[in-house]
Amino acid sequence: MGHFEMPQPTEKVQALHARMTLEEKLAQLVGFWVDQGGEVVAPMADEMATSSKYDEATPHGIGHLTRVYGTRPVDAAERATWLAGEQNRLRTQTRLGIPALVHEECLTGLAAWKAATFPTPLAWGATFDEQLVEEMGRRIGESMRALGIHQGLAPVLDVVRDPRWGRVDECISEDPYVVGMLGTAYVRGLQSQGVHATLKHFVGYSASQSGRNHAPVHAGPREIADVLLPPFEMAVRDGGVRSVMNSYAEIDGVPVASDPAYFEELLRATWGFDGVVVSDYFSVAFLHLMHGIAGGKGEAAELALTAGIDIELPTGDAYLEPLAERIRAGVTDESIVDRAVLRVLAQKEELGLLDDDFTFTPEPVDLDSPEHRDVARRLAEESIVLLTNDGTLPLAQTTGKRVALIGPNADSSEALMGCYSFANHVLAHHPGVPVGFDIPSVADTLADELAGAEITVVHGSDVTGTDRFGIDEAVAAALDSDVAIVVVGDRAGLFGRGTVGEGNDAESLELPGVQRELVERVVATATPVVLVLLTGRPYAIDWAISGSTRPGAVVQAFFPGEEGGTAIAGVLSGRVNPSGRLPVSLPRSAGAQPYSYLHPALGGTTDITTATSDPVLPFGYGLSYSTFEHTALVVDDMVVFTEATFTARVTVRNTGERRGTDVVQLYAHDEHASVTRPVAQLVGYARVELDAGDSVEVSFQVPPTRLAFTDREMRKVVEPGRIQLWVGSSCDDRETQTSVELTGETYEITGADERVVHTEVTSNVSV
Amino acid sequence: MGHFEMPQPTEKVQALHARMTLEEKLAQLVGFWVDQGGEVVAPMADEMATSSKYDEATPHGIGHLTRVYGTRPVDAAERATWLAGEQNRLRTQTRLGIPALVHEECLTGLAAWKAATFPTPLAWGATFDEQLVEEMGRRIGESMRALGIHQGLAPVLDVVRDPRWGRVDECISEDPYVVGMLGTAYVRGLQSQGVHATLKHFVGYSASQSGRNHAPVHAGPREIADVLLPPFEMAVRDGGVRSVMNSYAEIDGVPVASDPAYFEELLRATWGFDGVVVSDYFSVAFLHLMHGIAGGKGEAAELALTAGIDIELPTGDAYLEPLAERIRAGVTDESIVDRAVLRVLAQKEELGLLDDDFTFTPEPVDLDSPEHRDVARRLAEESIVLLTNDGTLPLAQTTGKRVALIGPNADSSEALMGCYSFANHVLAHHPGVPVGFDIPSVADTLADELAGAEITVVHGSDVTGTDRFGIDEAVAAALDSDVAIVVVGDRAGLFGRGTVGEGNDAESLELPGVQRELVERVVATATPVVLVLLTGRPYAIDWAISGSTRPGAVVQAFFPGEEGGTAIAGVLSGRVNPSGRLPVSLPRSAGAQPYSYLHPALGGTTDITTATSDPVLPFGYGLSYSTFEHTALVVDDMVVFTEATFTARVTVRNTGERRGTDVVQLYAHDEHASVTRPVAQLVGYARVELDAGDSVEVSFQVPPTRLAFTDREMRKVVEPGRIQLWVGSSCDDRETQTSVELTGETYEITGADERVVHTEVTSNVSV
Repeated sequence: MGHFEMPQPTEKVQALHARMTLEEKLAQLVGFWVDQGGEVVAPMADEMATSSKYDEATPHGIGHLTRVYGTRPVDAAERATWLAGEQNRLRTQTRLGIPALVHEECLTGLAAWKAATFPTPLAWGATFDEQLVEEMGRRIGESMRALGIHQGLAPVLDVVRDPRWGRVDECISEDPYVVGMLGTAYVRGLQSQGVHATLKHFVGYSASQSGRNHAPVHAGPREIADVLLPPFEMAVRDGGVRSVMNSYAEIDGVPVASDPAYFEELLRATWGFDGVVVSDYFSVAFLHLMHGIAGGKGEAAELALTAGIDIELPTGDAYLEPLAERIRAGVTDESIVDRAVLRVLAQKEELGLLDDDFTFTPEPVDLDSPEHRDVARRLAEESIVLLTNDGTLPLAQTTGKRVALIGPNADSSEALMGCYSFANHVLAHHPGVPVGFDIPSVADTLADELAGAEITVVHGSDVTGTDRFGIDEAVAAALDSDVAIVVVGDRAGLFGRGTVGEGNDAESLELPGVQRELVERVVATATPVVLVLLTGRPYAIDWAISGSTRPGAVVQAFFPGEEGGTAIAGVLSGRVNPSGRLPVSLPRSAGAQPYSYLHPALGGTTDITTATSDPVLPFGYGLSYSTFEHTALVVDDMVVFTEATFTARVTVRNTGERRGTDVVQLYAHDEHASVTRPVAQLVGYARVELDAGDSVEVSFQVPPTRLAFTDREMRKVVEPGRIQLWVGSSCDDRETQTSVELTGETYEITGADERVVHTEVTSNVSV
Repeated sequence: MGHFEMPQPTEKVQALHARMTLEEKLAQLVGFWVDQGGEVVAPMADEMATSSKYDEATPHGIGHLTRVYGTRPVDAAERATWLAGEQNRLRTQTRLGIPALVHEECLTGLAAWKAATFPTPLAWGATFDEQLVEEMGRRIGESMRALGIHQGLAPVLDVVRDPRWGRVDECISEDPYVVGMLGTAYVRGLQSQGVHATLKHFVGYSASQSGRNHAPVHAGPREIADVLLPPFEMAVRDGGVRSVMNSYAEIDGVPVASDPAYFEELLRATWGFDGVVVSDYFSVAFLHLMHGIAGGKGEAAELALTAGIDIELPTGDAYLEPLAERIRAGVTDESIVDRAVLRVLAQKEELGLLDDDFTFTPEPVDLDSPEHRDVARRLAEESIVLLTNDGTLPLAQTTGKRVALIGPNADSSEALMGCYSFANHVLAHHPGVPVGFDIPSVADTLADELAGAEITVVHGSDVTGTDRFGIDEAVAAALDSDVAIVVVGDRAGLFGRGTVGEGNDAESLELPGVQRELVERVVATATPVVLVLLTGRPYAIDWAISGSTRPGAVVQAFFPGEEGGTAIAGVLSGRVNPSGRLPVSLPRSAGAQPYSYLHPALGGTTDITTATSDPVLPFGYGLSYSTFEHTALVVDDMVVFTEATFTARVTVRNTGERRGTDVVQLYAHDEHASVTRPVAQLVGYARVELDAGDSVEVSFQVPPTRLAFTDREMRKVVEPGRIQLWVGSSCDDRETQTSVELTGETYEITGADERVVHTEVTSNVSV
C-alpha cells in the first residue's frame, strides 16, 4: 500500500469524524454536479428543479459542489443567492451540518457567465512575468470568494512535451522552471484571497504518446523527476498550494490515479503537502473503464483512495455505493476512507466551513471590473511575440492608407479565448446566449489604433474545412490596399469542437484548414503583409518565417483574452512595443515530435540522422521594435562549491530608438555529468524595461537547485564540473558567454535547500 | 559498480592470462580495422600495405579483426589466403601466439563481395517462418566458417517502435514474440556452423525520440522489460547466443553502454549468458563525445568495461592508450580488464583459436551457391504481402497483352537489397565495381513470368527529388497498355545515401520524392494498375489502399533480396500465391507516431481525442489468391491455473480455389490486470499450407510466459483473470473468439519456467 499515515486532525475535526456514519463519510468524499445530473440525477430543466433534486441527493451531506457557476450560463448574483440558501440548508437540515466546498474552473479567469477572460497560460508563459500572473490570480480569487467559491481547479502545471496535444493552450511553457515560476505566482495570487488553488495534472499528462489525449506516457522516472515534477514541487514548497488534482495518464503501465508513490510518498511524505488531493473528473471510474486495472468501480475506488485521491469528482461514481458495498462486505478497509475524510474536514475547517457561525453572504461583485480588464490588457500586451519583421511593423502614418484586414480570426471574439474560457467551454453549447461582456476583436479595435486608415474587413476563409470561397475576395482586397493584415489560427473548444483544446489533438502541425493557402495567396500580391497568428499551440510555419512566401512580419499571439484584440492592434500600430518571448519552440513538423529544447546532444540535430529536429524558431525567441545587446556575462567567482549559490551578471543595453522591454535569459549547460544533460537549460530570466540607449546590469543568484538533477541512484544532486553559461536572444544564441567551475563533492540536495528553487534576479544597478 | 563476478576460466585460459602484460590484455579487448585506418593507421592503397601496417599495429596481439571481407570489394579467396597468413603470423610472431577473432556483418547475408544477399529482416518478419530463417542462418554461417570468420554481427533484435527510424529495415517486426522467434532461429542457424551470432542492439535503440537515430529513449523499465527485452531473452535462453552488442541509446538519461544493470545483472546474472559483449562501433568513445557522461576516452573506457562491454569495436579508441594511462596512474582498477580478458580468451578457446594445432585453412567456397539462392528465393516468395486486390492480380492470360512496367524500382537490383547488404553498404562507395553476382530486377524477370506479354519498361521518376520528367512518359505508356505495374519505394543506404537505412530517418512517412504523384497519375488513366512497393519501412499509403486514387492491387515487398525480383514477378503472374503478412502496422502518418499495435486501450483511437491513431492496415494483415476461414476457436479447459500451459484449437479452411498458405494468428487480451495491458497481443502463430477446400485444426499450447508481464513490484507474473482469445486475418479481426479464465494465485515466473517462452504449434490433424 506504500506510505500510510493518518492525518493529525484538530479536536473539532476528530469529534466530528467520530460521529460520522459510513454514508456520511463517503458523502464528504464526493462532489455533486448541480446543473448536470451524471449518474445521480437526470439533466435538469431549470434551477429550481436543480435545487430540489440536489436536496434529495444529499441526505448525508456532500463534500463538494461541482461547477455551480460554470456549467450553464446562470446569473451569478441569483446563483449566489441560491447557493447561500443551500449552504444554510446543509448547515441546518443535515445531521452533521457540514456545508459544501464549492469548486469551479478558473484557468483563464473564473469560468462563470460574464466573468473576465484573461489570456491563456501559453500567453502567460510568453510574458515571463510572474508578478502580473500573480495579480491576475488575485483578481480571479477575489471574484470567486465573493461568489462563495472555495477552490479553483487551476493552474495547469503540465510541462509542454508535444505540441500535437490539444491541451497545450492550457499549459505555460516547455520549460519546467518557467511553468513553476508562473504557476506558483498564480497559486499565490488566488490563495491570497482565501481560495484554494489546485495543481493539475499531477503528473505526466502532457507527455502522452504522439500527443494524444489520455494516451500512455512513455517516460522513465528520471524524466518524470527532472522535467515533469519540478513545477509541482515549486508550487507545493514555495507556493503552499492547498490542493492537487491527479493526471488521467498512465506512466509506464501504471495509471497515476492508482499510484501511492506520487500522492502519499512524494507529495505528502517528501514535499510535506498537507492539503487535499482531488480526482480529475471521472478518472476514478476510468481505472476500471479505460485502464482496465480494476475489475469494477468499487475496486477502482479502493485503488484511488489507497493511492491518495481523497475526493472523487465530479460526482461519486465510485466512492459512494460501489465502495460502500466493498466496505460493508469487509473487502476494503475503512481506514482509507477515514484518512481522506480527516483531510477533507481539515480543509473545510481551514476554509472556515466548520466555524459555528459559518454563513455565506453573497457580496455584490463586478466580475469584469476595470481592474480585471487592466490586468487582462497588460498581460495580453506583454504576451504578444513578434516573430519576424522586415520593417513592415509598426504601421506608422496610416492616415489615408487602405488596410485589408483578412482572415477568420480577424473579427472573432472567440478566437481570443482558450478552451477553458466560459465562452468556448460552456457557451458553445448554448448558441443563443450572448457572451455578455466586451471582448473586442482585432477588427473592433483596429480603427482606433490606425488613425485615419480606411479598413476593409474580409473573412477570407474559415478556420477549418476546405472551402476556398473567400480567398479570391481576400486577394482582391489585398491588391486594393496599402497593407494587408491576415489573422488566422485556431478556434479553441472541447472534444471535436474547434482545432485546439481538450481532446482536440493534431495529427499535423500545419495551420488548420486552408489558412496557409489564404496567407500565401495574399502574400503573392505585391502588398506588404502582416501575419497574425491567434493560436493555442505553436504551428509549423517555416514557410511564413523563412520561405519564399513569407509575409513582411509575423506576430504570434496565444489566445490573449478579452483585451487581446486591443493588444494586437496596439502592437500593429506601434503603441505597444512587443516584449513576449516564445514559451515553446516553434515546431518543424508533426513528424519531428516529440521535441524539447531541453534535449541532450543526441536529441537534437546531429550528423547521424538525416532528419533534422531543429525547431523553426527556438525557445525564448522574440523581437521588439527596439533592439537589445547583451554583453560582459561574468560570474563573481570562477570556481564555487557544488552547494553554493553563484552570481552571474550581464549588461543589457537598449540599442534601439525607443523604450522597450527585454526578457534577459540566462542559460546553462553541464558539460559532463553522470547522466546525460540538456544542451541548454534556462536557469534565470528577468523582464527589463529600458529607454533607448540605456543599460542595466542584471544579476542572477543561481541556487544549486537550479543545476540539480537526478543521478543514477535517483538522488537529486549537483555534481562537480564545468557549467557553460550564456545570455542571448534565445536558448540557441550565445551572445555573451562564460562558465563556472563547480568544485568539491557531489552535493545531494535535501532538507531546507530543497525549498530554494528559484534564481533571485536584481536589475536595479544602472551602469 | 553493480554485479561483479569473475568468470571461471579453464586452466589453459588461466595460465595464459597469468602471463599477460597490461598491453597484451588490452590488445585482446579491441579490434583492428584492416581496410580502414581510423585512428590507428591511415587508409591504405592496397592489400599489401594493409597487411604491412597491420603487422606494425599488433605487437601485443589483437582481439578482433574488424570486417576483413566487408569493408572493401576484395576477392574472398585472395583475402582468405591473406588471413591464413596473418593468423599464422599472430600464432608464431607474437609473444603469446593468440590468433585474432574475425568478425563480420552478416544481417542479410555475409557482407562480402559477391556473397548471396537474402531478404531484409522486415521480410523475414512477413514470412512468420522461423524454419526458413534458420536455414538462411545456416547458409550464411557455412560461408563465414569457410572464410575463417568466427563471429557475425547479426541478428538485429530491436522491436520496431517507430517507422520513422531509418534502421527499421534491419528489424523483424513490431511484435517482440515474432522478433524473438525469428531472431532465435537465425542464431540457431548461424551457430550450427560454429560461427557466433551477435544480438544487437541491447537494448532500446529502436525506441528513440521521434525515430531519430541515436536520440534518447523515453521509456520506463516496464516497457523495456515487456516489449524490448523479450527477444533478447529468448535468443539467450532458447538460442544460446554467444555474443551481444550494446545499443548506442540512452534510456531515461543513462547511456546503455555505461549501465551494468543490463549486461552484468540482467544478461549474465539473471539470464545466465556467459559469452562476450562487444561494443557497437565507436559507442565507447561516444560516452564521452556524444553523451557527455565521461570526461575523456579513458573514463569512457572505464564506464563501459564496468558496465560489461568486454570488447571495443571497431578499434581501440578508448580501451588502448586512454585506458592504459588511467590504469598505470592507479585511477582505474585493472580487475575490470581482467574480467573482460578472461571472457575473451574463453570465447577464443571455445572457437578453437587457443588449440595448439590451430590453423586456418581456407576452403573453396561458393558464396552464392544454388542452395543459397534456393533459400533466398523461398524466403522472398513467402515474404511478399498482398495488401489489396480487386481481381487485377494475378495477371492471368498475358499472351498478346501489353504491360507497362513503370517506376524507379522496376529495373533496379539495388532496390531489392537492404542497407546492410554489401551492395548498398559498401559498393555504394565504389561506383566502378560491379555487384558481381546475379540480382535480377523485376524488369529482368517479368518477361519469363508473363508468357507472351509485350512489356514496356519506363522509369517514370527517381526515388527521390522533385523531378517529374518521366511522369508524362509513364502515363503515355500506361494509356497504351492493358495493365500497368508501378514499382516504387525506397533505396537503402547509410547516412544520407538513400531513403532508408542507418541514419536515414524520415520526417514524413509519405513515399519519397514524387513517387506518389507518379502512381496517382498512372492510376488516373483507365488502365488497370498494380502498385508494387519495394521499401525498407512501412509508408503512409492510405491513398493507395482506400483512396479515390487507389490502384487495382497493391503488393508490399520489404527488400526481398537477390531472388526478390523473381518472387515479385511470380506473385504478379500467379505462379506464387502470396502468403506474407504485415510484420508491422501500415502507419497512418508521421504525425501519428509512435504507435504500436501492442497499445493499451488509451493508446489507440478513442472518443477523447480527435486524432485517430488507427493504422491504415493492421499488424498481421495480408491477402492471398485463396481465402481462408477460421472457425471454432476453443480452449481445452475454460479455467486453468495461472501457472499452467493451456491449449487453444482453431479450424482453418482454404475456402478459395487454389492451394495456398495461411498464417494462423492467435491473439490474446488480458481484461483486467494490475498494470495496463495491450488490447491485442500475438500469443502464437502457424504457417499452414492447404489445398483448396481442405481444412486443418491448428492447436496452440500457450505457456504462461506468453501472458506474463511485469507487475508493480517489477516481477514477471501471470495474474488470475479472464483472457480473451481470438483468431482472424489480423490483430484487429476477431473472426472466431473465446476466452480462458486464469485462476489461482498470481504466478511469478522464475527458474526453469523462464526458458519456456514459445507457443508450441501443431497442425497435423486433418478434420
